[in-house]
Amino acid sequence: MAKVAKESPFAPARLPVLPPIQGVRFATAEAGIRYSNRTDLLVAVMDEGTAAAGVLTQSKTCSAPVLWCRRSLKHGMARVLVVNSGNANAFTGMKGRAAVEATAEAAAAAVGCKDRDIYIASTGVIGEPLDAAKFTDLLGDLAAKAVPDAFEPAARAIMTTDTYPKLATRTARIGDTDVTINGFCKGAGMIAPDMATMLCFIFTDAAISAGALQDLLDEHVKTTFNSMTIDGDTSTSDTCLIFATGAAETRGQKPVTKAKSKRLKDFSDALCDLMRDLAIQVAKDGEGISKFVTFTVDGAESEAAARKIALSCANSPILKTAIAGEDPNWGRVVMAVGKSGEAADRDQLAIWFGDHCVARNGERAEEYEETAVAKYMKNSEITIRIDAGVGDKSATVWTCDLTHDYVSINADYRS
Amino acid sequence: MAKVAKESPFAPARLPVLPPIQGVRFATAEAGIRYSNRTDLLVAVMDEGTAAAGVLTQSKTCSAPVLWCRRSLKHGMARVLVVNSGNANAFTGMKGRAAVEATAEAAAAAVGCKDRDIYIASTGVIGEPLDAAKFTDLLGDLAAKAVPDAFEPAARAIMTTDTYPKLATRTARIGDTDVTINGFCKGAGMIAPDMATMLCFIFTDAAISAGALQDLLDEHVKTTFNSMTIDGDTSTSDTCLIFATGAAETRGQKPVTKAKSKRLKDFSDALCDLMRDLAIQVAKDGEGISKFVTFTVDGAESEAAARKIALSCANSPILKTAIAGEDPNWGRVVMAVGKSGEAADRDQLAIWFGDHCVARNGERAEEYEETAVAKYMKNSEITIRIDAGVGDKSATVWTCDLTHDYVSINADYRS
Repeated sequence: MAKVAKESPFAPARLPVLPPIQGVRFATAEAGIRYSNRTDLLVAVMDEGTAAAGVLTQSKTCSAPVLWCRRSLKHGMARVLVVNSGNANAFTGMKGRAAVEATAEAAAAAVGCKDRDIYIASTGVIGEPLDAAKFTDLLGDLAAKAVPDAFEPAARAIMTTDTYPKLATRTARIGDTDVTINGFCKGAGMIAPDMATMLCFIFTDAAISAGALQDLLDEHVKTTFNSMTIDGDTSTSDTCLIFATGAAETRGQKPVTKAKSKRLKDFSDALCDLMRDLAIQVAKDGEGISKFVTFTVDGAESEAAARKIALSCANSPILKTAIAGEDPNWGRVVMAVGKSGEAADRDQLAIWFGDHCVARNGERAEEYEETAVAKYMKNSEITIRIDAGVGDKSATVWTCDLTHDYVSINADYRS
Repeated sequence: MAKVAKESPFAPARLPVLPPIQGVRFATAEAGIRYSNRTDLLVAVMDEGTAAAGVLTQSKTCSAPVLWCRRSLKHGMARVLVVNSGNANAFTGMKGRAAVEATAEAAAAAVGCKDRDIYIASTGVIGEPLDAAKFTDLLGDLAAKAVPDAFEPAARAIMTTDTYPKLATRTARIGDTDVTINGFCKGAGMIAPDMATMLCFIFTDAAISAGALQDLLDEHVKTTFNSMTIDGDTSTSDTCLIFATGAAETRGQKPVTKAKSKRLKDFSDALCDLMRDLAIQVAKDGEGISKFVTFTVDGAESEAAARKIALSCANSPILKTAIAGEDPNWGRVVMAVGKSGEAADRDQLAIWFGDHCVARNGERAEEYEETAVAKYMKNSEITIRIDAGVGDKSATVWTCDLTHDYVSINADYRS
């Protein structure tokens, strides 16, 4: 049994309310896959003509549902999304493939579509065969009773050990038409053994082609989900899917087929903002979190280099533990910049903790005063800025600290 | 002040005794650089004609002594090595350069040699100016009173928060002559803030050219020091130097100038064995260690790929905490293999914990029995073997687990 983690100090006091999206309906169920007395199955039914795009884990040991989605995405259209929590259906061999195929077959029969219109995601234990028979019989009934106004229960059904559901909504204007973008995701709550999955599902009523959606998602995932880390461990199941029902066309929106179209500018910005919001919500629910940490790198040779330096800091155990200890240990920032392998001018490097400049021109800043910076470290949100001194490109990465609770959550499972 | 860490459970009951090496003498002193009541300065004086080779940190923010050694190594000859503990002289700008130059000047004057025959290493706090005046006056006296039979005090003087000195000795035969190889190092005891330095010094009386020594060191560092990790954090000061006095020539050893010479085979094997011994000693003194862990990867496409997969496991916080918790969590091994980015056949992958096969052909092994494997996890030394299923190359990496003590050591500095 998974232990119940204490709620993240960053859990929102109030969840955002997501309006319905025309052309999408949700239903959830308690299928008893691993958990008792909670929902663990989500079905989203989408109207015909819904375009789909997605970004999937780069893991070489990816799960059976990831391989399935990769195939469906080639086609780029969607009718049903099925998500279960409690079992990742990863590293399950032929049995895993069979479970995915049985799920797709039942989902396609439920709405009368082809297999290739089905998308599947699973999150939970790795290596345990998933018994799809526990829920394939339920899919027909769920598809029939699905309702539009159910984003919060949908977000709750996919949680594993997240301490709160992660929801966000935005509106954007395409031409003269207002469209809605809703998203929810689950994060890096790896309390029970093997939980290690970031799943994100985004829905919009905009009429945008699968190709354009894919280009937007590829662009924005870099500065949002791929700029967030808990412990640097990449899951076998990471999945981010976006579905566009095109219902806004009935309200006069002319369909868009190119990501670079000027008409998509506002939508693109809103989508990026929503994805950033969700990514930050995931970081703020990181295992054992006591502090939310933002690393901003300026003055790098390229945006990719800036991101690599920021991630090198955000994934450094020794720096993250120092932050947990409220220690303004900027020497460890120097170390993490140095080990990133990216260009940085040792003699131009500058570092700020909040507004406090701690190092400049490759050495401790003249005005550095440990007491003031130590006081800053007592804040629950910490921002560390680095100027690499070699260019003019920037990147930002979000993470949490590394605490005793992280070790307890991940090590003391059997105690 | 640094906290005193409890001794590693792997501290040796008895330290190895290292015989003198003809042509090398040591002296140590209490220079009061940061610590009180302990030695923190080491001077090694070598006879004229001593060849030198070295491998230095790849960090872009490397320390002033590392830059100095890089210059001296071009020349390839050595007379004096000066090492201080307590201050890393890293990220100290122009002041750092000046401190290194003052040290080299004083050391050169002490034995009457050129600057370029001097090697310097510093370990300790990053970012604090090093006051070389605290010890430059001592160097003349130390050089004069240096003695050959002092490897243990030498190893103790360079310790920061290591819980035991790390020493090793080997003999090898070159032609008909027996030669000795001695080495000592300090490790990843990062208890006070910023301590993060691996320093290793190896001495031999063999007559081998600097070029051949460099080739041997480059080759063996891959499978020894670069196959060992505590937390994946690369220091600004990592330094491994080897010095060959050539004194064995007086006993009939014909000098060797090519690493590939057949006459060096036995020496090369002994050197590699000594370096592996020292690397394992460092891992066994990792911060907060409760278990020593060996990852062996077979069936990889190349040796480099095998090492990358093994390091991906050895640096995974979530896998290392599971090991600390005695949880045979092989799903996290699957994750770490997948995130390495190296080729692995998901459907051929096999994993063993000790002699217990837990996964085979891409899924849980039929004979897997959790009770037996959980019992195995109670051992203090854990071996995890992975077959990537795509080739016939192997690599081994050593590490420790990630424990509450690691967090305490690195986070609770100010508490």
